[in-house]
Amino acid sequence: MTTFDDPATLSPGEARALFRAGTARPTTGWANGFTQTNLIAVPEDWAYDVLLFCQRNPQPCPVLDVSDPGDPSTRLAPGADLRTDLPRYRVWQNGALAGELADATGLWRSDMVTFSIGCSFTFESALAAEGIPLRHVEQGRNVAMYVTNRECVPAGRLHGPMVVSMRQIPEDRVDDAVRITRGMPAVHGAPVHIGDPAALGIADLGKPDFGDPVVAEPGDVPVFWACGVTPQAALMASRPPFAITHAPGYMFVTDKLDSEFRVA
Amino acid sequence: MTTFDDPATLSPGEARALFRAGTARPTTGWANGFTQTNLIAVPEDWAYDVLLFCQRNPQPCPVLDVSDPGDPSTRLAPGADLRTDLPRYRVWQNGALAGELADATGLWRSDMVTFSIGCSFTFESALAAEGIPLRHVEQGRNVAMYVTNRECVPAGRLHGPMVVSMRQIPEDRVDDAVRITRGMPAVHGAPVHIGDPAALGIADLGKPDFGDPVVAEPGDVPVFWACGVTPQAALMASRPPFAITHAPGYMFVTDKLDSEFRVA
Repeated sequence: MTTFDDPATLSPGEARALFRAGTARPTTGWANGFTQTNLIAVPEDWAYDVLLFCQRNPQPCPVLDVSDPGDPSTRLAPGADLRTDLPRYRVWQNGALAGELADATGLWRSDMVTFSIGCSFTFESALAAEGIPLRHVEQGRNVAMYVTNRECVPAGRLHGPMVVSMRQIPEDRVDDAVRITRGMPAVHGAPVHIGDPAALGIADLGKPDFGDPVVAEPGDVPVFWACGVTPQAALMASRPPFAITHAPGYMFVTDKLDSEFRVA
Repeated sequence: MTTFDDPATLSPGEARALFRAGTARPTTGWANGFTQTNLIAVPEDWAYDVLLFCQRNPQPCPVLDVSDPGDPSTRLAPGADLRTDLPRYRVWQNGALAGELADATGLWRSDMVTFSIGCSFTFESALAAEGIPLRHVEQGRNVAMYVTNRECVPAGRLHGPMVVSMRQIPEDRVDDAVRITRGMPAVHGAPVHIGDPAALGIADLGKPDFGDPVVAEPGDVPVFWACGVTPQAALMASRPPFAITHAPGYMFVTDKLDSEFRVA
């Protein structure tokens, strides 16, 4: 299928159609210029806890849309179906990963409330536009993500650690990366840490908790941004009876332009 | 009391102490440099509707803090009491204004959830710092606020129109006012409209729905920002059984610096 050769040039609708038809690939670099989102869907009984957790932890969990109970559509991509249009889903039972699925329709409950949360892939096009290299894209890998030693602010029954994504950035471009991402608070904003993995409780950059290890080039510095996988860490810690999420790195591709999320 | 002569120089704690002791004055210009917030408190049963309404309408309703049920404290000002430390409260029953109070303690329910919402007074210090005049402060009046013809995105049982605050800005400073406030999305961000009150369904600038009429100087242009009184318009339209809010313009003075809400 020729579209595989350059997923960056696909339209969001074309990307979603591929995923709906069964393609399962990390979405970094896909449909370049369009915002991607993290997904977490919970039964209505848990929706307030999730929404409040996101409000109290806006850097890892910036909410871009919330569905009504049972509604699998989103304002971020009219006509899309959140049960089928992501490349890969995770199913959670009592805080444990019960499995991964290509299609979540069969497990969808009539009272599911779906949260679309901003994703750092959104600012990658802004970084690339200023010539900042994206090592994981160059290496054809998913971004590397790590559970940190920073606790989120709890909300109701939800608590858990912050998850971060890491990018290796040439030392002389770190300031630019900070400036660019600071202006995009709806997609995690400025880095939460620069330079020392141990400061976040990360023992080995070569062993990410989610995604793939990414090789640094000489002169690169590891830069850490709050990550929308954080709600999944909260599911593991807080053990709600049931939830469906995206698989880390396998995001929902929206119809919204990345540029809509730039403040400055 | 000498502190009345220059409320701008009060600390947030001094301002709150005056309000707690019974002083009832609009807070524009008070405790200069510290963020003020709108208040809406509802029984727990309505909390999800309010939080979702705010998520879906972030420009009028940027949430800066949410309490746990029954807890009258806030992370925005440790030690403060949201039941007593505002200069004036409004009590709502079934969507109707039941009265105004100096102290809400007697009506507080054990399951009240309190939302602190960003206020445009926060960006006034940034406007003033660049020499943009604030006519309502010069004239010793509350800011003028208007119900518009723009409907907010509904959420659960809550719906209603957007409320705006209006400032008369010299024509050659309007661009600066847009630039400055665009960089502060947590306190309403850029204006929603410039120039024509009729475009928002406002028939007469001289008759605000909340606050005081403000006199324009020659060459001024009316500039409209989304306003944190919007949840009160939603209460009127949606008729929840019970709610407590601040009185428009009589805000909560937090310990947070305005500068913390600047993105750019």
